[in-house]
Amino acid sequence: MAHQISDEMRECATLCLNCYATCIECKAHCTSMGGRHADPAHLGALADCAILCETAANFMLRSSDLHSDVCGMCADACDRCADSCESMGTDDDMMKRCAETCRRCAESCRAMAGFG
Amino acid sequence: MAHQISDEMRECATLCLNCYATCIECKAHCTSMGGRHADPAHLGALADCAILCETAANFMLRSSDLHSDVCGMCADACDRCADSCESMGTDDDMMKRCAETCRRCAESCRAMAGFG
Amino acid sequence: MAHQISDEMRECATLCLNCYATCIECKAHCTSMGGRHADPAHLGALADCAILCETAANFMLRSSDLHSDVCGMCADACDRCADSCESMGTDDDMMKRCAETCRRCAESCRAMAGFG
Amino acid sequence: MAHQISDEMRECATLCLNCYATCIECKAHCTSMGGRHADPAHLGALADCAILCETAANFMLRSSDLHSDVCGMCADACDRCADSCESMGTDDDMMKRCAETCRRCAESCRAMAGFG
Repeated sequence: MAHQISDEMRECATLCLNCYATCIECKAHCTSMGGRHADPAHLGALADCAILCETAANFMLRSSDLHSDVCGMCADACDRCADSCESMGTDDDMMKRCAETCRRCAESCRAMAGFG
Repeated sequence: MAHQISDEMRECATLCLNCYATCIECKAHCTSMGGRHADPAHLGALADCAILCETAANFMLRSSDLHSDVCGMCADACDRCADSCESMGTDDDMMKRCAETCRRCAESCRAMAGFG
Repeated sequence: MAHQISDEMRECATLCLNCYATCIECKAHCTSMGGRHADPAHLGALADCAILCETAANFMLRSSDLHSDVCGMCADACDRCADSCESMGTDDDMMKRCAETCRRCAESCRAMAGFG
Repeated sequence: MAHQISDEMRECATLCLNCYATCIECKAHCTSMGGRHADPAHLGALADCAILCETAANFMLRSSDLHSDVCGMCADACDRCADSCESMGTDDDMMKRCAETCRRCAESCRAMAGFG
């Protein structure tokens, strides 16, 4: 039988890849800003989130048996990244956009983690 | 000065990540179909395209100096993947959608490769 | 203070990248073999293991706070992949080498998961 | 016929994954050092090299038709990264180790690029 994934799962994968893109761009932005934006803990939170978003998307698109575990871990990394971006202040558009994208992705991944 | 990428580049990165997602899903579909859909050359073309799309997106989102070279190579992989999907016949929706997504991504990446 | 990782963690990252390489090569081998070697569940187990090995290595090399969680998940994927390779029979050198590499990586990752 | 890669190609893939690991660790080291080590151009050179090394290894391990193109691009990124590490001064062990690893990987990838 042909491989098929639900619309809900494909939508979560899209949110994950969008979050991946936002985190990579935000990381380059923060690196160029310097100062507290380039704090290793903040850049690390962005890297953790980007990589787990990409991994979660891949596991969902392949309908892997392990996708719910990976989504659960991804949701955690998304929330940590959103916290870190919010702590930088919301007067920076990139930081605000990244935090919002991460929260939305976290919510979707948490739902997927429950459907394991 | 803060890192900034053009809307055109961000749009190309989005097309690349969309093409990545389509190729990964299509590869799982073809693997489950078996027969000529699971031909190593076809699955290899899908893998080449997926990986270079993801790499090209990453290089654009980071404004890497090498992004135009990577985009040029990605465009090539996208066209090869579209050719391979088209050779499977267009009565399969997944194959048709993948070929179209790859062509559109190839066009955008070729434009980026010219702006190096 | 400069970033530093323990020799034990760097060693585990090396095992993970070695396991990644073995799984990618084994997956290409199984795809070309066809038959039960190209079963979607077996190829999926190899993909799961390869991707989580690469992710775990990356998290350890960056000393991410989440490395122990990722290592725990990686150990699980390594054991599943070893089981799948062993079920293909041990008269195939590639399958035997892959199973052994996965078991060794699983053991190392499990130790890392405990040091969270 | 079963998929097989030459010992030379597998060895180059191993050098690439070793260079990937060194660049990721070096990037975390430089980020934590701050100052000129955290210069966006230097961190970018490390990221470019790490990603293309991983990509090149993957393409070789799958015997992709495009492996020689990817290896050529990887060799370029390795040399740029080595240049950047050397410009930081050779009194830093991590920088010295990274530059040497990149040069060795560049040489091996250049040889592979010629065998396309």
